[in-house]
Formats: sequence, structure tokens, C-alpha cells
Amino acid sequence: MDTIVAISTPYGTGGIAVIRVSGPQAVPIVEKLTCTLQSHKPYTIHHTTLHRGEEILDEVLVSLFRAPHSFTGEDVVEIACHGSLYIQQEALQWLTDAGCRLAKAGEFTQRAFLNGKMDLSQAEAVADLIAAETKAEKDLAFSQLRGGISTQLQSLRDKLLHFTSLIELELDFADHEELEFADRTQLKDLADTIYRHLTSLADSFQTGNAIKNGIAVAIVGPTNAGKSTLLNALVGEERAIVSDVAGTTRDTIEDKIIIDGLPFRFIDTAGLRETNDLVESMGIERSRNAMEKAQIIIYVQDITHPQTDLTNLPKDKEIIYVLNKADLQLHPTSDSCLLISAKNNDIDILKQRLSNIARAHFNYSGTVISNVRHYEAITRAKAAIQRVLEGLDDNLSGEFLSMDLQDCLGALGEITGQITSQEVLNNIFSKFCIGK
Amino acid sequence: MDTIVAISTPYGTGGIAVIRVSGPQAVPIVEKLTCTLQSHKPYTIHHTTLHRGEEILDEVLVSLFRAPHSFTGEDVVEIACHGSLYIQQEALQWLTDAGCRLAKAGEFTQRAFLNGKMDLSQAEAVADLIAAETKAEKDLAFSQLRGGISTQLQSLRDKLLHFTSLIELELDFADHEELEFADRTQLKDLADTIYRHLTSLADSFQTGNAIKNGIAVAIVGPTNAGKSTLLNALVGEERAIVSDVAGTTRDTIEDKIIIDGLPFRFIDTAGLRETNDLVESMGIERSRNAMEKAQIIIYVQDITHPQTDLTNLPKDKEIIYVLNKADLQLHPTSDSCLLISAKNNDIDILKQRLSNIARAHFNYSGTVISNVRHYEAITRAKAAIQRVLEGLDDNLSGEFLSMDLQDCLGALGEITGQITSQEVLNNIFSKFCIGK
Repeated sequence: MDTIVAISTPYGTGGIAVIRVSGPQAVPIVEKLTCTLQSHKPYTIHHTTLHRGEEILDEVLVSLFRAPHSFTGEDVVEIACHGSLYIQQEALQWLTDAGCRLAKAGEFTQRAFLNGKMDLSQAEAVADLIAAETKAEKDLAFSQLRGGISTQLQSLRDKLLHFTSLIELELDFADHEELEFADRTQLKDLADTIYRHLTSLADSFQTGNAIKNGIAVAIVGPTNAGKSTLLNALVGEERAIVSDVAGTTRDTIEDKIIIDGLPFRFIDTAGLRETNDLVESMGIERSRNAMEKAQIIIYVQDITHPQTDLTNLPKDKEIIYVLNKADLQLHPTSDSCLLISAKNNDIDILKQRLSNIARAHFNYSGTVISNVRHYEAITRAKAAIQRVLEGLDDNLSGEFLSMDLQDCLGALGEITGQITSQEVLNNIFSKFCIGK
Repeated sequence: MDTIVAISTPYGTGGIAVIRVSGPQAVPIVEKLTCTLQSHKPYTIHHTTLHRGEEILDEVLVSLFRAPHSFTGEDVVEIACHGSLYIQQEALQWLTDAGCRLAKAGEFTQRAFLNGKMDLSQAEAVADLIAAETKAEKDLAFSQLRGGISTQLQSLRDKLLHFTSLIELELDFADHEELEFADRTQLKDLADTIYRHLTSLADSFQTGNAIKNGIAVAIVGPTNAGKSTLLNALVGEERAIVSDVAGTTRDTIEDKIIIDGLPFRFIDTAGLRETNDLVESMGIERSRNAMEKAQIIIYVQDITHPQTDLTNLPKDKEIIYVLNKADLQLHPTSDSCLLISAKNNDIDILKQRLSNIARAHFNYSGTVISNVRHYEAITRAKAAIQRVLEGLDDNLSGEFLSMDLQDCLGALGEITGQITSQEVLNNIFSKFCIGK
């Protein structure tokens, strides 16, 4: 195993930057350029210079970690230098000259996985944690990092593995057809439990996806109802062009904001009306597409021109009816229709409703998966365990059960990384940032 | 003194981010959110969680430093968390909730200065070091950080202070006119030394400025000589629009590149010719201005159309004569005129000449000042010590000498920060980045 180096702090100029070195030669290599470290205890910090002979690059703090008690499970040395771009790049150069190799994206975390410091779903959580922009995203990634997905799967998989071995043992005694080492009733109970667990995990993907990419909210309604003004009020800036001219918005405009720690992705659309304008009618077509894809629809009307025909709205979506321009006209309050004034930024009631719907619609309790790779593996595992259940009902022989059990074990093992190809690993870690 | 907090690593998403807490309450405040630190030795690292009751924000490493053995001279705790923007901002929020105040720009370094960990010119060097983009800039800042300017100035100032006290003692015995506690010959020697030292420092400012802002190089010459092609070849990208049409470039275009570790600022200019085009003639006017301001001029000619009348070039500048388009025509090599082909990127000989001139022209050995504030203080100190020297020559009384000596002491004290107003300090540190 070679010794790798990368800048672990964000790219750019700052007070300090941290350069991470990991591998069997980490201590001797950094010693060449700093001070004696060999004799020091791990988890200590040393104030020294980064130098090569007489030439001093910087005054630095060196932190010492020893295998296996480090992030990667290897010897790790972290060098905190002044955060100048020149110093950071030069320090990297010096360390590679001294025998380090530049780390690939995610390579530190990959080593942590390979050294058994974490399983694959935990390693993937590190990248999600770093990318987290909201509390919901962070909570999701952090729970995964702490073993939220793997612990339960691991335990279920271990039990399944036990039954699979017994069934394969039966196959070795194929002459004695009556022999059943694996208790079919117990196996059915376990398969049932696994099936329910996988179903719940697969169902949580919709929530996980909403957390990662934002809950899609389409803002629709007739022209000139103030949809763009509402978008601007929601995102807190002049995102969309607003004018008194009906049909101002043609392109769909998207922006993401956080309400109550939940990410929403708002899509402003062209007003719905009959038009002969080609570009506008293309825009209206897009509005309909946006509605199809949205998870929540805000239907905005002008309080001074309320409409009655709302037949065109999709039936299967959460719809919030909004009467805008409440600053222009008094109107009785109603539960079914929110009164707002986008122009006066009087939209708190709408934000509250969005947050309530999101919390009711998406289940944030329990384990939530947000990773497409996990979703696909879980879907495959679920299909396999379903075949096992059907096989048990049909009293299929161990031979047939065994194949489906293996499929299920394989799919589950892919999530935690017990069964993975180098190609899969490379693909996963290449999406990381350098330095982690 | 309150306890301050800031993110010390560059802004953005990365593997890790470091949050720095400094002040008398640093340890108890961080303890509330992490683990016991009080009982641990300084210079140790602790793997723990950042939590508030049951709520865990992140897994972190906490580094402990104790006054006065820290950057600021106060108790300092550094928290290394995952480099997600959400986690960074939330951690800041938690720490301010727990009793920290958000640090102002440069406030950590300001505290280091106030606690006597460094003098003012060293504190200023910290900001320059962080901003350094080239080896020359970094060397300059690092030498200043290590006391390159202050040590000598400090020692000369101490000696001058001694003489000044003696002269002021004489004033107390004003009745005895013949009394001279301060030996005038020794004072003259000292004043001479100081004057020479200050002259050399003031002269070094041109070099320091070139290092900080780049050595200005104007690329001039007749139209269609390939000046913009040369700029593009120098900076290694399609920076300026190139065409066969004479007079393509009108605006002056600037770009900075590093050659041999020295920063150059290249200015591409409009070709010099008689023209009736208004915009082009404005461009030519700018070319002449660029030449005036440049420290080096590259005069580019087309090898197939060499000119003979070069009378318009300034006499007091370093000029490099270049024959471009060497790919089109054979030409005897000459020392006075470099043959290049900008189009084929065959320009190494020009880069070498630029580097040689820069190294000969700017004196990179010895102490170099690059800070305008220092330059102004040194200029004032130099004028004052010159008046002292003249006063000594004219046998002026101690009363008059004393005034000029005080002026000189004051100006020198401003550089190292012995004499500074809060306003000056605020002004200096406000230019720092947050977190340093």
C-alpha cells in the first residue's frame, strides 16, 4: 500500500489549510520535512516548520494519528499550514517529491472501508455528509454514517446466511429427500421480516430523494395571478421577471429554498390560458409537465378574479389553493384556500402549509435511504426474497430456494460492501471530493 | 476579553473544515458541546461528537491549545468537522449560542499582536502570507513574519531611544548649556546607520511592490505584429482576440502569469500606427499610457516587416526587442533582438530574458518591504533622521534635535506597532480574512 496525500480543506484561500497524509510511510515522509514524530504519542500536535534543508516553506502544526486509530485505519499525519494557494500547492509538491502519491477522489474513505473502519454504505454517507446543505440532508447522511442502514441489514443478512448454509447442506445429502436441516417455518418468518424491512426501506426512498433533491413544488395558475411574484417572495430575491403583462413568464424557472429545515424546489410556470403565441403555448406545455413531475402543486389565483373551473389539475397530487393579492381586496379566510400577498411578502401561512404537507407526506422517522445504488440493490433483494416466500408456499425444493436466497444475499451484500467489485468501488469513490 | 469563534479554513465544501475558538472561555464553551477537555494536556487531539443534549451535529476532532502557547496567546480550541456548508454554519451557530462571539476579520491575529505573540509588521505578514500566490510573494511575507523587518528596526529604534532619553535629560539641565550627556559623534554614527538602513528599505519597496502586484510588462509594437498572439502564448490561453485584421486589439488587456516564480503582469496594447478610427486612436493613447506605467516593455515586430524608426519608445525603461513570426522567415540570431514565434509557442527565449531582467532589476536579496503603510512610515522616519543629521551638522541644540528624534521614533514605532492607535489597528486587521 502506498502513502497518499491531498488537501482536505475546501479549495481556496483561507486562514489555514489542512494537508492529509495516510499510509505506511506517512510518519517517515512527513518527518523528513518537519520534525521527529516517531517517538511521540498519537493524538498529539507539534508546532514546527515545513522545510527542506535550509528552505522553509511555512510554520505548521502537525497532528499525529497511528494505525488503526485514525480515519483511514492507517498511520495518518495532518499538516495545518497557512491557507495560501501557493503554500498549499507547494506543500503538496514537496510531499509527493518526498514519496507520497496524490490521493484520488475519495481514496482516504476508500481506505477506511478497505481497512474495515466502516462498511460501504457508511463510506458513501461520508460523501453525502460533506455535500449536506440542509439539516434534513445532514441528518440522513449522519444516521447512515452511524450505521443506520447497515446495522439492521447486516443482522438480517447474517440470519439469512445461516439458513442458506443449512439449505445448501441439504443439497449435499440430496439422496435423503426427507432431510430438512433448515426449518421451513422459521425460514418463512425470517423471509417475511426481511421482506417487510426491505419494503419499508424501498418506500423510504421517495422521502430520501426529496431530502436530497428538494421536494418539487409547481407554482401554477392563470396568467397574471402573481406566480412569479410568489416565487420571488419564496426565494427572497428577484429570481423571475415580474411585469403587469399577462404571459411574462414562459420558461419554467426553478429555485431551491429551505423551509423548516426541509429543502423545496419551486418551479414557476407560464400562466395557464388559451394563447396563439407559439412561445407562450410551448411554455404552457411545460407548465403541464412541471405539474406532472411535482410532488406538491400551488395553484395561485388573483383574489380579484377568482376562477371556478379547476378541473384540469391532476387528481393524485397534494394541491394548495392560494388566493393572491390579498392586499387588494378583503376576503373571508378559509381553510381550503390560503390568502396571501406575494407582493407584500405576506406568505408565512403558505410556508407553514408546505412544511406541514412535507412532514405528513414524507416519513422522516426511521431509516431513510437516499442513495440510488442502495435503492436498486434493495429492489433486487426484495424481489429475490419474494421469490423465496413464493417458493416456500409452493413447497419448492431447496435447490430452487437456494438460488433465490443467494440472489438476495448478494444484493444485500452489495449495500454494505461485503460483495463488491473493484469497478463498483471505483465508481462509488470517484464521486467523492479529493482529500476525503 | 470575550471568546471568539470563526471558520478558519477556506469557504466552501471540502473533506474537513476547522472552526477556531479563542479566549478565556474557549475550553469550557467547547466542553459543553463536546467532551471533557479541562483535564487533558495541551497539544492533544480528541475524537468526539459535537452534540447538544441528545442531538448530535457531527463526529469531530477537537485540538486543545493552552495560553500562552497558542497562535493568539489565549486558550484555543480547534474543532475539525466534516466540511459540509450546513455543518459548518450550524456549528458556528451552536458555538455562538454557547457563549462565543463571531470573530471579526483578522481578530485572531490581532489578539496574537495584543498578547505580544508578534509585532504589528509580523501580524500584517500573516495576511500577506495567506494571500501569497507565488514563491516570491510567499518568501517576502514569510521573512516578514519571522521578523525580517522588525528585528533590525527594533534594535536601531532601541538605540535611538537611548540617545533621545539622554538628550531630553540635557534639556532638564538647560541651565548648564555645556552639558552633553548624549555623545554627538556616536549619535551621528547611529543616525547615519539608521538613515542608510531606511534608504535601503525604502528603495526595496519598488521590488516589494513588483512582487505583490506583478512586474508590469507592456507588449507594444506596430499593428499586426502578433502582440495578442504573444499575450495568449505567454498566458497559455486564448485571452485576447486574434485576427489577421490590423487593429484588432483596442482595449488594453491584462493578465498575470508566473515565470520562474516571479509574477509578471502583461499588458497587451493596440498596435501603434496613424489611424482615423476614433476607438482605435483611443486604444493607441492607452498603449502609450501602458508603456509609461510599465517596468519592462516588449517591443514586438513582424520579422517579415521589420521597422527601423523606434524613436518613440521611452528611454528610461527596460526594453526587449522581439522579432515575431520567426516561423515565416529565416533570420540571423542576434543578442539585441529575440527571435520568437508566438503562433508556435516558441517563446522560451523571451521568458528567460524577462526572468533575467527581473532578477537584475529588482533586488530580491535582503529585507524587502511590500506594505504601503510601512513604506510611508519609513519615508517619514527617513525624513526625520535626515533632519537630525542636518541638525547635528549645524550644531543645533538638543531641543531641536529632540523633536526630530521623536518624529523618527514615532514613525519607526508605527511599523512594529509600539505606537499605534486603535483606528490604525482596526484598519489593518479589517483587511484580513475572517478566521485568521
